[in-house]
Order: sequence, then structure tokens, then C-alpha cells
Amino acid sequence: MIAAVERAGPLCAGIDPSEQLMARWGLPDDASGMREFAFRCIEAFDGVVPVLKFQVAFFERHGAAGLRVLEEAITSARSAGSIVIADAKRSDIGSTVAAYASAWLAPDSTLRSDAVTVVPYFGLEALGPVCDLARAVGAGVFVVVRSSNPGGRWLQTALVPDAAAASGVTGAGAPDIGAAAPAEGAKTVEDTLLAAIADLNAASGGVGHVGAVVGATLTPSAFPLASLGGIVLTPGYGAQGGTASGLARLFADCDPGTVLANVSRSLLDGGPEVGSLRSHADRLRQEIADALRPSSP
Amino acid sequence: MIAAVERAGPLCAGIDPSEQLMARWGLPDDASGMREFAFRCIEAFDGVVPVLKFQVAFFERHGAAGLRVLEEAITSARSAGSIVIADAKRSDIGSTVAAYASAWLAPDSTLRSDAVTVVPYFGLEALGPVCDLARAVGAGVFVVVRSSNPGGRWLQTALVPDAAAASGVTGAGAPDIGAAAPAEGAKTVEDTLLAAIADLNAASGGVGHVGAVVGATLTPSAFPLASLGGIVLTPGYGAQGGTASGLARLFADCDPGTVLANVSRSLLDGGPEVGSLRSHADRLRQEIADALRPSSP
Repeated sequence: MIAAVERAGPLCAGIDPSEQLMARWGLPDDASGMREFAFRCIEAFDGVVPVLKFQVAFFERHGAAGLRVLEEAITSARSAGSIVIADAKRSDIGSTVAAYASAWLAPDSTLRSDAVTVVPYFGLEALGPVCDLARAVGAGVFVVVRSSNPGGRWLQTALVPDAAAASGVTGAGAPDIGAAAPAEGAKTVEDTLLAAIADLNAASGGVGHVGAVVGATLTPSAFPLASLGGIVLTPGYGAQGGTASGLARLFADCDPGTVLANVSRSLLDGGPEVGSLRSHADRLRQEIADALRPSSP
Repeated sequence: MIAAVERAGPLCAGIDPSEQLMARWGLPDDASGMREFAFRCIEAFDGVVPVLKFQVAFFERHGAAGLRVLEEAITSARSAGSIVIADAKRSDIGSTVAAYASAWLAPDSTLRSDAVTVVPYFGLEALGPVCDLARAVGAGVFVVVRSSNPGGRWLQTALVPDAAAASGVTGAGAPDIGAAAPAEGAKTVEDTLLAAIADLNAASGGVGHVGAVVGATLTPSAFPLASLGGIVLTPGYGAQGGTASGLARLFADCDPGTVLANVSRSLLDGGPEVGSLRSHADRLRQEIADALRPSSP
């Protein structure tokens, strides 16, 4: 993924066929319309955008028929050389979370993607089967850590007393974030998770298989993202309020290729024509690459 | 649901066709095997167990073909008069979470269920579209609040300073849990969520549409579950370590019909024969009803 991002730019196209967008593109809101929508996106972004993120919820709205379209779209996009993230935000424990890992990452799954998004309400340890399978098959996991919606802040910034002991992932202590911690000996839920992800990745050497989702509209937290050891996926640029200067500030010091901006609405507004969607994507890619360039102000 | 539980007993059958269980039942681990598994369960539990919970992950392992089986199973079970919970543990924000609500609860969805499980990492407010649709169509939502896995405790018990203001759901203050709070002015994530759910349900009058998932192996938290105003779904009885006395202690004072014990492994071990599965379910139902009876020790 890092090679693709360094070559083509740090843009991830969010393919979100919502009810509203289907109407705007003049397509029927059913499985056939979803298919047309997905394949126009795949054609438009081929060779321009290195990573495609399919929002599973919009396909799931149409049940098994919608998931059949998603299978086709994922398979086609990967065959064409795109990197595919399944934005499924799955979570559970034990054999259930292992089943989700299998659905989205196993080589013999019809939904096989290059990476999947997961949600850590059960703790990071519970997501072990997804991280393990990702490592085994050379895929990735993106853990939603800091979401952009204001209604999620209170939970994600709740305080974990003695966070290092609590992360419970590797048994080793979490990296020391010292003076910046919000209360003596306590870290926020989100920073505890980021530190635990860094621990997991440190065990891999190089860039690890576990990334994080961090909203583009947020200000930096105490944890230094440059030390995550994995890729950060950042949604919220454009229509949702994220700006170039915001990206530059949030990801200062991060290595080139380790930050991937997901753009959905602002990008898909370039459609429904394949040509206009493609040139719109090309402009956005340049804009975001400039914002994330190390020399950028 | 309360009427069904009062009539038939507080048992929810967790239909979890895991790889291991498919093998134990001698069924092929593919869509056809899943179909056989699901329909044996539906037949065995008809008239004995009032609520069936399908674990979506195990069907999702088989992609669109697995989801097609789940559509058939949900439709058949509901036609036969069972109440169906889709254990999907979905979560997201905005139009995406609205799409999940639509997938699992909308009257015209092929996956339409009577209730769906959701995960609150984005805050409770983000789950608004699911709660709203549930209320509009007379369905239910179960928010996973206190999970039984030890690795989730640190996050779910992280402290929210000034929790009443933070819940951000109704604008009104959360119920006062006073002296039992773990630190002055602070509440845990899980108790903040429970209080916010109680607020939502209080606005409905009677028993509200929003329930909570609370692991059967846990000890009580500061929040009094009897004041939730919704149904509590409690997994973990039997194979996972939950006991009758544990249930009685955790749900003391809860109204009859408002606590529903989900049993999966301990129940499905009664298979693969329909007859033995049925009589096994009948015994378990009695055991759990006794544990939750108000006069129980």
C-alpha cells in the first residue's frame, strides 16, 4: 500500500452508493443500480486513485443481492490492480470476530479484500483474530480509533487509569506519552488504543498490518501518530469539513505513504460521468498530495 | 417481546453456525450446510424458544450465498411466529448507520428482523438512525454495553468526566447514580451509555425500543438495570461461564420479561437431531426461568 501511495498519491476513493447519491446520479436504488455505480467508479479511478474503499452498509441495504454486487466489484477492482478496503466496521469477540476476519480477508472468500475496517469497543485484544489473519495473508486492518463525529468524543476521550497495564495486547508496557497525558497516570481510550496498535506493529518490523482510522477534522491527540508503525486512514476531507492545513497539522512528521486520505462525497460529486469523475479525482489527488508533502507548511 | 418472554420463558436461542459446530453436526461448511443448520434450529425451537438470534458473522463468511441463506432463515422464522434478533453488531455514523438500520429493520428489506444489535464506539447519538427506525416500525435495538470478554473491561470502564453532560443524547441530564459512581463526578463508559439508553426509553413511555447487551458473567455495575426501561439481552450463560445464581444477582429487581438470556453453545450442543435439540432447549428454558423468577434466592 505504501508503494502504491508513494507512486500514485495518498488518495483513497470512498465508494458510497447512498440513497441520495444514487438519486443524484440518476440510477435506480437497487442491486442493478449499485452495480452500475460501482463499475463506473472502478473505471473512473483505475490508474488515478490507488486505493478504493467500498462502504459495505450501502450494499448490505440490498441484502444478498447487494452483497453479490459487492463481491463482483471487489473482485474486478482487485483484478484491475486497485487496492481494496472493505469499510465494514465489524466487531465482536472469539469465533465470531474470526468469522468476520474470514469473510473479508481469507484468500478463498468471495468478499476477499486487501484490508477491512474494524471497531474496538470490545478492546483491541478481541480483534486479535482479524490482526492475525491479516498478518498471515499479507492484508491490512484499520481500527477506527478517533472518529470525526462530535457525539463520539466523550467515549473516545474517556480516561483509562493506568493505561499501559490496561491495553492488554502484548503484555509489554505501552509507549510512554508522558507529560502530554490528560491526567496523571491516565490516558484516553483513543490514545490507549493507538499505543497498543503501535505495540502490535512494533512486533512486525517495518510497517505493520494494523492501521488506524483518525478523522481529518480532529486536532492532534497526545499520541504521536508518526510512531504508529502502521497506515492512518483519514476520512472527512472536503465535504465533511477537513482542510489541507488540517491534514498537514494532524499528520506532521508522518512518513510519506503512511497517511491515506479517504474522500467520498466531495469526490463522487464529480460524477455521474466517468470522464468528469476521473478528472475530478486527479485534481483531488494532487491537492491532498500537496497537503501531506513533508515540506508543506 | 415481553409478552412472548412471559408466555414462553426468557430464553433466546443463539444460532451460531461456526466452522467448529458445522463439523460437529456433520454438515458441509458452505451455504447448503448453513441452510440445513438454520432450518433444523428453526424447527427444533418453534414453540419452545420465543426468540431466535442469528449470528450474522457466520453467514457472512459465505458471502452473498451465506446472506441469501440468512434471508430465508429470518423470513421463515418470523413467519412461524418467532421473534428474530439479527446479531450484526453494526456501527457507523450518519447515512452509513442509517443504511445499516435500513438493511436490518426496514419493512421492505430482505433481511428484515425484529431487532438488531449495534456497537456504540461512535457514541449513542450516532446510533440515532437505528433507534429512530426501530421506534417507527415497532422493532428493537440492542446496544452492546458491557461485554463479557476480559479484554474489553478497560475500555468499557474508562471514566467519563461529567458524564451527564457527555451523554449528549437527549439534552436532559442522565439519571443520578450518586454515591456508587467510581470517582467524583465521573461515570464509566458503560454506565454513561446505560443512563443515556434509559433517557431514550423514558421518552417512549412503557418499555422502550432500545435494549442493552450485558454479559451474564459480569458482576453488577453502579447503574441499576431495573431502571433501563428496555430489555436486557444477556449472553454467556452455560458454556461461557454464566450461572443461574449469577443471573439472579445481576438482574435482581428487573421486571419479568425484561431480561432475555441468550444461549448458543450450551444449547446447540443438544444437536444435531431436531428432537434432542428441542428437548435440550426446553430444559434450558426452565432452568433460566427459575433463575430469573422474582422470588428466586
